Amino acid sequence: MGVSYTAPLNDMRFLLREVAGLERISKLPGCEEATPELTDAVLEEAGKFAAGVLAPLNRVGDRSGCRLEDGKVHTPEGWTDAYRQFAAGGWVGLGLWPEYGGQGLPKCVATPVLEMWCSANMAFTMLPQLCPGETEAIHLAGSDALKSTYLQKLVTGEWACTMNLTEPQAGSDLAAVRTRAVPQADGSYRISGQKIFISYGDHDITPNIVHLVLARLPDAPPGVKGISMFLVPKYLVNADGTPGERNDVRCVGLEHKLGINGSPTCAMSFGENGGDSGGAAGWLVGEANRGLEYMFVMMNDARFGVGVQGIGLGESAYQQALAFARERVQGRDAVTGALGQPIINHPDVKRMLLTMRARIMAARAVAYTAAGWFDIARHSADKEAAAKARRYVDLLMPVVKGWSTELCQQVCYDAIQIHGGMGFVEETGIAQHYRDARIITIYEGTTGIQANDLVGRKILRENGVTLRELIIDIRDTVEQLAKADGLQPMATRLEEDVAALERALEWILANGRDHLAAVLAGAVPFLHLLGSVCGSWQLARVALAANKPASRDAYGADYVSGLIELARFYAHALAVQAPALAAAIVGAGETVADSRFALP
Amino acid sequence: MGVSYTAPLNDMRFLLREVAGLERISKLPGCEEATPELTDAVLEEAGKFAAGVLAPLNRVGDRSGCRLEDGKVHTPEGWTDAYRQFAAGGWVGLGLWPEYGGQGLPKCVATPVLEMWCSANMAFTMLPQLCPGETEAIHLAGSDALKSTYLQKLVTGEWACTMNLTEPQAGSDLAAVRTRAVPQADGSYRISGQKIFISYGDHDITPNIVHLVLARLPDAPPGVKGISMFLVPKYLVNADGTPGERNDVRCVGLEHKLGINGSPTCAMSFGENGGDSGGAAGWLVGEANRGLEYMFVMMNDARFGVGVQGIGLGESAYQQALAFARERVQGRDAVTGALGQPIINHPDVKRMLLTMRARIMAARAVAYTAAGWFDIARHSADKEAAAKARRYVDLLMPVVKGWSTELCQQVCYDAIQIHGGMGFVEETGIAQHYRDARIITIYEGTTGIQANDLVGRKILRENGVTLRELIIDIRDTVEQLAKADGLQPMATRLEEDVAALERALEWILANGRDHLAAVLAGAVPFLHLLGSVCGSWQLARVALAANKPASRDAYGADYVSGLIELARFYAHALAVQAPALAAAIVGAGETVADSRFALP
Repeated sequence: MGVSYTAPLNDMRFLLREVAGLERISKLPGCEEATPELTDAVLEEAGKFAAGVLAPLNRVGDRSGCRLEDGKVHTPEGWTDAYRQFAAGGWVGLGLWPEYGGQGLPKCVATPVLEMWCSANMAFTMLPQLCPGETEAIHLAGSDALKSTYLQKLVTGEWACTMNLTEPQAGSDLAAVRTRAVPQADGSYRISGQKIFISYGDHDITPNIVHLVLARLPDAPPGVKGISMFLVPKYLVNADGTPGERNDVRCVGLEHKLGINGSPTCAMSFGENGGDSGGAAGWLVGEANRGLEYMFVMMNDARFGVGVQGIGLGESAYQQALAFARERVQGRDAVTGALGQPIINHPDVKRMLLTMRARIMAARAVAYTAAGWFDIARHSADKEAAAKARRYVDLLMPVVKGWSTELCQQVCYDAIQIHGGMGFVEETGIAQHYRDARIITIYEGTTGIQANDLVGRKILRENGVTLRELIIDIRDTVEQLAKADGLQPMATRLEEDVAALERALEWILANGRDHLAAVLAGAVPFLHLLGSVCGSWQLARVALAANKPASRDAYGADYVSGLIELARFYAHALAVQAPALAAAIVGAGETVADSRFALP
Repeated sequence: MGVSYTAPLNDMRFLLREVAGLERISKLPGCEEATPELTDAVLEEAGKFAAGVLAPLNRVGDRSGCRLEDGKVHTPEGWTDAYRQFAAGGWVGLGLWPEYGGQGLPKCVATPVLEMWCSANMAFTMLPQLCPGETEAIHLAGSDALKSTYLQKLVTGEWACTMNLTEPQAGSDLAAVRTRAVPQADGSYRISGQKIFISYGDHDITPNIVHLVLARLPDAPPGVKGISMFLVPKYLVNADGTPGERNDVRCVGLEHKLGINGSPTCAMSFGENGGDSGGAAGWLVGEANRGLEYMFVMMNDARFGVGVQGIGLGESAYQQALAFARERVQGRDAVTGALGQPIINHPDVKRMLLTMRARIMAARAVAYTAAGWFDIARHSADKEAAAKARRYVDLLMPVVKGWSTELCQQVCYDAIQIHGGMGFVEETGIAQHYRDARIITIYEGTTGIQANDLVGRKILRENGVTLRELIIDIRDTVEQLAKADGLQPMATRLEEDVAALERALEWILANGRDHLAAVLAGAVPFLHLLGSVCGSWQLARVALAANKPASRDAYGADYVSGLIELARFYAHALAVQAPALAAAIVGAGETVADSRFALP
């Protein structure tokens, strides 16, 4: 069984250049380095590192898992060495500030690179993946002292970082956070409490670990308005910047999980030793009681990153299933009766492979486009363009997180299905993707939480203004399709999709005030609908770009034909569900709230 | 974390009496014992055994798995003792011939009992679950000598049995079977070859194991027409019926699997020792070269049983998720803002629970109804009724297998989702259901194979005659709904469903000859469509029965109101996908076959 990974450079290049607007972005102030040529070189190098260094360790991590011994967490063999190479290659700070040792590349370039790491070894990637969000929070809100002490260490990957949010009694409900922070005379704080589900909460990879911790000050108001953010290093930092005295924070347990076994999921204890001061030494990040706001800075990046994990895992599962389907000989051709067929020739297996690839490409096109909007929002001198891009990023963040991760589950599911009985045997390797994937619709906010965010904060709060704006842009693509050679049927389908989205939006807006529970009961189907329509939209843009004569020359005739076929398959075999989803949103809304006895 | 199971006796009783026609069946010749009262008593006893004996071992089996040591397979602790009690209770032969020690109860009673075993401990249940199919094949085709030597031992559970079909080069493709059988002077055969994926191929539970093995005679024609069936006992049987000399068949490896770890999945070697005779001693079952036909007798029962596994696993996952959602306090009420809500009060969590329960009840209603048809087909003196019931059983067998098992995956998926982060931790127990469930859409014929069987053998071969007959019966239910108090909207929905089914059927019939590859590309969506419509139909019949005043008295007002709410939810929030599935069948058909470059 060959479990290998090859970075899909053609797909990445095509999407960046023809769909996400790389060229335009590379002309924005601060993005000038990200020329298409340099981007190609970066992607190629990353592809080599992913395939050569990270992918071979993926199975190792799953098999050996992590160990907690004498209060220390040991990661799988090879992890530390791979991380050293990763940091030395400048990959940790690829999209971060050059003044702190980062490469300063735009997010639309950093995104396919992150995807490669996730394809190759998601459990490993979870360690460096936290860096952008965490450093962003410190950069935004931290004091100059915190910035100068920590940012360079983190951006270069010399030290690692963690997010400490969840407590046993407070899963997704941060209002229930109980960890306490007591101010000290020297301006620092003493932190005490328990956190759970902390990825890489402890490990043997870097000489120091920087925890960002949500906790309450003694006089804090109750609920989310009384949460502050603290920086708690594993080792206190000496005046010369080296790690010094051990802080009173430790890993007290490791979870035995369904997947991502190479990544230690830690129960953390702060201030367990008690003593005079009682607590781990910590420093307030930003202002008191504004922790939730800073946390959302981290969280937004983390959510985007989890969506990319879905795309990466899906790509990896797809590649393995495709290779298996080409090698495995079983049964006869359904039409000709010819024996000795590789199973890819069976129509149902081909349908599954097309479904997998179409879903991955749809989610990837949406994510890369969103990454491009992110760059425009951050760097564009055109205020209006920047503001619109920011609105779109905000609207679609729950889609990139919630929808891409749900699609990934289905892709990994089909990947097992294509393997038949071999898929159920761990030795084959495909089951690991299925197990690893199961967390991504849960952590950094479940799909239900994403959907509530979408419907509540992103739509109802502004009465659907941004989504209506997006719908106008989608209809612009419908018009282009209608004029393009051979793409008219896709125009008809996309218009059906967008009309279904519009109907659902109107129902949500009409009922959001008086029937909020009904609207929230339809929130997840609505998330799927918006995702599906955005996928259609972006794949339609792929088809339009692929349809240009110049693309045939630049990317090859077979490749661009394949993209058009894929967009057509997505529109007619998958996105065709849109009207049913619109009906299901209303149906769920109207029946869930009224069901009183159906769950005996 | 309480991982317990309570048999859903109310649901089972309601479906058997009001939907599957238990009373009518108990009046058929040979089914007289199965009165509603006796059936209640049987279900109650089975529920106690499932909850008290089997469920507590489920986790044990998952954790410890099986061991192969010195050529012997050791099952998890407690397995042998539980099996002894199981056999002593008469559960192995519950639906089998009284003259061989069975209880002779109809399949519609044996089916909910099997469901309970699967809910409580699927890995354990796989051992006795093979008995009905295997003994059916021996009963149908075996010589008197084979019947008198083996049937009583198997029906009483004294010995266990296995099915040996798959070979490394021949997963689902039995035409490729290579195992050889050489006739001997004494009328026996010598069997040699390798089989893989043999559930309970060896174990320490019973003093003998009877393998039914597909193999080829020296002069057999190639392909499936040259396959014969042989009975190969682990120990040859002495004249007095006791196990004697060890036969040359052994387990040479155990698979390390994603789930069902309590069940040993064996690689089996026949005739490894070679020697003079070269092969394991075996006896031909029935006539030479008709093995595939007999195998389908086993397989049909096995497929139905795997569908029931799906329902059982789903029920178990649902119960655990429901209990968790009632206990777990998180967040505030979306409408009132009140804190300290159990998560079941969150609209999205309630939607997931309703989805789980509606799917389980739909699949269960279809399976129990099909079991009732099976009994009518077998026992009814009314030839016409029996023939119609047989047609319906044959038509819906791939639906019970293929559709119920796919639904189960979604139910187990949602069960993890409801648990949030806790669902990803193995200690919680819910991940085991998710892992165990992953095999059931694969073994005994993948979903793709079920769908091909449905579209090819069950529809195209007879030009859709039986499905048209079924559609007329579904429309009869539409009429009843239209006349029933408060159920008119459900009538409208069911008519939409059945109209979508009809459209898809016409497309299949119109294209089956000239565009078979296109039709087969839409086969799995069609299986989902037929399953979804049958689920709607049976839940509509549930709602009609629940709507009767007499039902309120017999089952309680809240319970029957809940059933109506559930049917309504299913119709409006789930089955509403039917028109989209019909479109997707055509869309997949038209795009998959034409895609030449989309899988680069």
